[in-house]
This record gives sequence, structure tokens and C-alpha cells, in this order.
Amino acid sequence: MAWNTNVLVGQSGGPTAAINASLAGVFDTARDLGAHVLGMRYGIEGFLAGRILHLDRTLGSPMDVELLRRTPASFLGSCRFMLPRPEDDPAFYRDAFAKLEAARVGAVFYIGGNDSMDTIEKLSRWGKEHHSDIRFIGIPKTIDNDLVGTDHTPGYGSAAKFIATTTREITRDSSVYDLKSVTFIEIMGRDAGWLTGSACLAGEPGNPCPDLVLLPEVTLNQDALLQRLSLLLERKNTVVVAVSEGVRHRDGTLLCEAAAEAADGTRLDAFGHVASLSGTGRYLASVTRSALGCKTRAIELSTLQRCASHVASATDLAEAYALGGAGVLAAREGKTAMMSAITRIFDKPYLYTTDLTPIEEVANKSRMVPRDFISADGLNVTASFERYARPLIEGEVSSTYLGGVPHHITQLDADRA
Amino acid sequence: MAWNTNVLVGQSGGPTAAINASLAGVFDTARDLGAHVLGMRYGIEGFLAGRILHLDRTLGSPMDVELLRRTPASFLGSCRFMLPRPEDDPAFYRDAFAKLEAARVGAVFYIGGNDSMDTIEKLSRWGKEHHSDIRFIGIPKTIDNDLVGTDHTPGYGSAAKFIATTTREITRDSSVYDLKSVTFIEIMGRDAGWLTGSACLAGEPGNPCPDLVLLPEVTLNQDALLQRLSLLLERKNTVVVAVSEGVRHRDGTLLCEAAAEAADGTRLDAFGHVASLSGTGRYLASVTRSALGCKTRAIELSTLQRCASHVASATDLAEAYALGGAGVLAAREGKTAMMSAITRIFDKPYLYTTDLTPIEEVANKSRMVPRDFISADGLNVTASFERYARPLIEGEVSSTYLGGVPHHITQLDADRA
Repeated sequence: MAWNTNVLVGQSGGPTAAINASLAGVFDTARDLGAHVLGMRYGIEGFLAGRILHLDRTLGSPMDVELLRRTPASFLGSCRFMLPRPEDDPAFYRDAFAKLEAARVGAVFYIGGNDSMDTIEKLSRWGKEHHSDIRFIGIPKTIDNDLVGTDHTPGYGSAAKFIATTTREITRDSSVYDLKSVTFIEIMGRDAGWLTGSACLAGEPGNPCPDLVLLPEVTLNQDALLQRLSLLLERKNTVVVAVSEGVRHRDGTLLCEAAAEAADGTRLDAFGHVASLSGTGRYLASVTRSALGCKTRAIELSTLQRCASHVASATDLAEAYALGGAGVLAAREGKTAMMSAITRIFDKPYLYTTDLTPIEEVANKSRMVPRDFISADGLNVTASFERYARPLIEGEVSSTYLGGVPHHITQLDADRA
Repeated sequence: MAWNTNVLVGQSGGPTAAINASLAGVFDTARDLGAHVLGMRYGIEGFLAGRILHLDRTLGSPMDVELLRRTPASFLGSCRFMLPRPEDDPAFYRDAFAKLEAARVGAVFYIGGNDSMDTIEKLSRWGKEHHSDIRFIGIPKTIDNDLVGTDHTPGYGSAAKFIATTTREITRDSSVYDLKSVTFIEIMGRDAGWLTGSACLAGEPGNPCPDLVLLPEVTLNQDALLQRLSLLLERKNTVVVAVSEGVRHRDGTLLCEAAAEAADGTRLDAFGHVASLSGTGRYLASVTRSALGCKTRAIELSTLQRCASHVASATDLAEAYALGGAGVLAAREGKTAMMSAITRIFDKPYLYTTDLTPIEEVANKSRMVPRDFISADGLNVTASFERYARPLIEGEVSSTYLGGVPHHITQLDADRA
């Protein structure tokens, strides 16, 4: 029996290489079940402003959906919009539900991170309290991998595969001259060190790489770091350090804040703007050069690490797609206020199953790298981290190249259709 | 009849994704002809210090050579070492030739850019003047693509493929929110704009990307740039600009120097070091934010663009390998003081042949982007640039992944062997 309803799907928060694979999973499964699929242009904020895409038309051919799986960032567009608390602004929810009912929406799927799960939690709570039939399901997505209630989050594996690949390539690049050097690779993750830790996947048995890994979960002992670098340089030419943008001094200030302050006594750049959260690597490169006198270099992976679809993890994209589809099946069965989740069965061979986690256990919590994933001296990750992260980057995706560049599907194509 | 000699091969200058493919070409061809292949550890500087690798042993299996083709940077190690002029220091050359003769070297192959071709030029000139039988051949390599005497240089195509791919991914990433933004992507190339121009390959018919391309061949008119950005923002949300690290103001100062000066009146960073050649993108992001009030972002592709083997161009690696082999064949025929070169026969379909260019026509010259490859207003490249560069990035290389990361061969493996 066909699921004769409209389903509404949105994407929220920062882009990843896998968020469109989850959209493809929602779309394919909902359409297979007979539903019509509407998309929120620019997230819940766009939907409330009346911006709806008819995805049955936009994604008209199987090739469109196949390209969607390989296209980074958010095909539908995204927003950063926190819903008010239902008790503070009931008018907001009355309006939102009136709009959902006007569009004959039977189920809402929101693909995103922490704030998006908060959106699902609030909407589903209001819905339950007001006896709405609309189902609300969260589909997890964040390169930061800091959501609770799931073994890991789609988007993380692909970002980690890019980070590991690039860390290995940078290490080759740094090793060509017969001189002492320290290279700092600055990686995203303000509070959680999952991304920075994934640099360890560049290592091979008997040949660890990078040499050190500095996570935001551990405050930096700068003297201990310099001492360790000095020892490393005694026995090898090329030292490579992965460092999170969110690493802090023992007094709680971010290294990058210290960098900005050191320059001119304020945290403003030359044009009076507050310095952005980067410069951690540059700060450490400068400190190390002063203290040890060797060549240093800082490299920021910047936004490249969250949209590098050309080196996406096949495992990641498959899970992202599966979690989208599993969310639709759950809604079809009448479930609401849930997040699609991954439960790991085994590390090697890697086995997992999809699951559902009550949304109130997820929203507004975050998951840090556990202590036993970090070495005792706080300057590296352990074998447990590698065992956890390795399977998530395995498998390669064959991009569709046109003119030598991976082909994407974009809203421009959609607007033309 | 076997070529019963020792050949010596070295790598010099900055790393690329293709320099090891040229080494593989030299190695395979020389060994097929019956020669023994010696490698310079850390270039000519290392050779003169007695650091020789026996590559017949180091690269013992066909799989080693296959991995070598897919490994970025310089497998042998590199140096930045300018030879003295023969007339200034004949003792240097007497010593060098004595060492070559002691190692029974019949031919020397040096893979590198401008400085490396200068090395070949000086050695071959001394050799000719002193009736040496040793042949000297240069194999071109530089991501900068600024060598004369060849249509283009190995290493350029792979760097360009990474730049185009990443520019497209960054454009996706920058487009997700419903707000006005300008993103500056800072690309290598102090004097020549070949790399920055290759960002245009991210565009598709009817959908140019990036919006603007700023090359070092054109001094910046900052007011004209801001005016153009303002117009672009009137009709679209997301503007992306590719900018060379080497762009200068009309008074001749580098934008990145201006950035450092603006911060504290000097060109020194907070620790008293001279600021490195980067910050061009950050400078433009800050200026644009001040002038136009929109969100801005600066992203440096940094060293990633020269060692991204995981997205190497198959055309580039095949040409790099072919030029290595062609150099060996030329030496076998008795040629010396030559550089292996590429002559383009046609753009589409792309057809080329290998060639030889007298080394004195190459050394110490450099090739800029010609004026007709740059738009009249100096803010973009033309269709002629795209037609030139497109074939060089075509074709994908299947990396050998192990544990989800491209596998490389390194000196560590060689040292163990």
C-alpha cells in the first residue's frame, strides 16, 4: 500500500561530503514507498518563508540522484537557525504547524548536527503535545562526529579520509630536503578532537604519522611540546604535528587567540575585525621556530576538509544514504521524535546496523574523544582511536569526471529544470 | 646491444605529484636498455657528498615502480643548490667529474625546474669543453609551468587538477547559506599565473567558476576589483575569486607584504620573523569585508596543491613518465645538453609528441601567461587559457589504497630493503 503523503526534507548546519547522500537516501526511499518529496530551500528558515522545492521534479532522473550522492555541501541550501522554546513562543509553532499542514506534510526529515536535532526535538515535542500526526525524524550529519546516540556521524568518515590522505601527502612533501623541519597541520574541531585525531590514519604499521596529535580535549603544555619536538628532531629530519584549531593554553585561552594578541595586543586584525578561529598552527610554528631554530611551516586544511567529495569514503556515503532511508522507514511505521543512528557490531571486519535513538537523548549534548583514545602524555592518540576510526574511511567512491573535474549537481541545474 | 653503463638520476627543487613518475620513466627505460641506475640522494648536493642509492636494489619489484608513479614529492630527496659558474670555480667541476667517472657514470638525468636546467647546462658545458663522454639531459618538472622550450611541464597538470577540483568543491561549500559572501582562494605562483589560472577549469559551459581570477602578470587595481565584486554581489549570493600569492599593488609591493605591514608597520610577524609569502587572500578578504560589508573568507591551498597525488592527472603522469624515458633514449643516442620536452600537436583531441630542446635555450628563462590568455580588464582568464589547460588535467589515476589511504613508497622502505 502506497504511503500517500508528502514528506518534507531539509538540511541544516555546515556542509559535508555526505549530507547529500542522506538526502538521496530519504528521497529514494520515500519515493519508492509512494510519497511525494518536498525540499526545504535553506533549511527550516527557508521553509517557513515559503521556499519549497518539488524534488520529484528537481531530481527527475536516476542519474540526478547518483550525482547528488557525489556532490558535496548542501544541495537544498542550509541555515543556522535555532527554534525558540515552545513555552516562550507558541505562536511560532502554531504558524509552523499550519504551514506543514497546508503543504499536507506527513513526515519531516531534518539532516544535520546538534542544532538540527534540537529543531526536531522541539517540533516533535510540540506535535505530541498538540496531537499532531506529523512525524519528525533527525538524520545525523556532522564532520565533527560529536553527536551522542550514534557510533559516529555521516560526514566524519569522508572528512577523516581527506585528512589522512592529505596528512600523508604533506608528510611526503615535507621530507624532501636534508634539513630539520616541523610542520603543523591545523584541523577543524573547536571542542571535539575527532577530526584532528583522524590524522593518525595516515600512519602505517611501524611508521606512525603524524608524529604528534594535539586535541582540544587536552590543554597544551607548551614546554612539554617543545621538549618532545626537540627529542624527535634529534632522531629524524621531518616532524609533522596535527593540531586542532580549538587547542587551548592551560589558562583557557585558545592558542589562536594568543596568536592574535601577540601580534598587536588585541584580538582584532588590521582592519578592526575580530580574528577568526584559525592561526593555531601559525602560532605553534612561530613559537617552535623561535625556541628550536628549525624550519617550520603551518598548513590549514580549512574548508577543504569538509567538502572533499573527490576523496569521499565509500563507507561514509553508504551509511549516510542508509540512515536517510532508515529514517523514512521509521516514520512510515509511525515513529517520531527519533534520530537515525549507527550501532557498531564489530571493528574488523567492520559490521554495523542502523538504529533509532530517542531525540531527547541527543539534542544539546556533545561527545568528546574519550580519555583512553588519547595517550597518557596528551600528545597523541592511541591504537584504540585508530581501531575506531579506520573502518570509517575505507572504500573509495568513483567520482563522475567531466573535463577532468568531478561533476556535481547544483541548484542552478535545479532552477533550470 | 645492451647499454653497458651506469646512469645517474637526481631530483631537484620543489616536490610535485609527477616528479616520481619521471624517475620511474628514467629507471624503467635505462634498465630495459641494460644500464644500471644510480640515484642521487638529495640531488647533486647529496651526490657530491657521496650519497648514492642503487636503484636496481631499491626498486626491486615492478610493484615498487608502480607505487613510485603514484607517490608524491621526491622519492630520492631534493636540494636547492646552484652550481658555481665554471669560470669562477673550475675546481668544483674537476671534483664533480672525478666523482662521476669514479662511479662509471655514462649519463646524468636531472629532473627539476629552472635551477635544475641551469645545473644541466653548466655540467654539459664543462663536459663539452673538457671532452667528457658523459651525457647530461634535463627532465622538466615544475608545478609552476614556467619553463620555456616545452608546451608545459610535468607536475602542472596534476596541480591544476587538484586546484580545479578543490575550487569547485569550495564553491559548493560557500553556496549553502542564503547570504552574500566572497571567498578568496590563494594559489601558488609568485611570478607566473599558470596555477592560479587553472582554477578556471572548475567552470562548466554556461557556469563559469570562479568568478574572478587574479594573476601576478597583472598588477591589481583594487578599486576596480571592489567595484566588480559589488556588481557581482548584486546578482548572486556567492562570489569566488582565485588569487595568486604573487599579486602586486600598482606600486610593486606584494599584497601579502601590504597585509603584514598593515598589521604592525613592519613586515615581521609577532616573533620577529619575516612574514612568509602568504596572506594575499587574507588581505583581500579583510579589504573586501571593510568595503562591502559582506561575509568574506580566505583559503590557502598551500602545499596541498603540489603533492595531491590522490587526484593526479593521468595525462600528467603519463607525460612525466614518457619524458623520463625519452631523455634516456636521447642520451643512449649520444645526445647531451638537452631537455626532454613536449610539443603539442592539437588541443582537442589532445595530441602531443616528445621532443628535445637545447638546454641553453631553457636555463634561466621563464615563461609567463601570455596576454591573450588574460581578459582585457585583467580580472579573469580567457577561453584560450581554458583550451590550453583543459587537456592537461584529463584522465584519472587509480591510486592503490591501503586502509583507506593511498599507499606510497618511501625512502624508509628503501632504507629497509
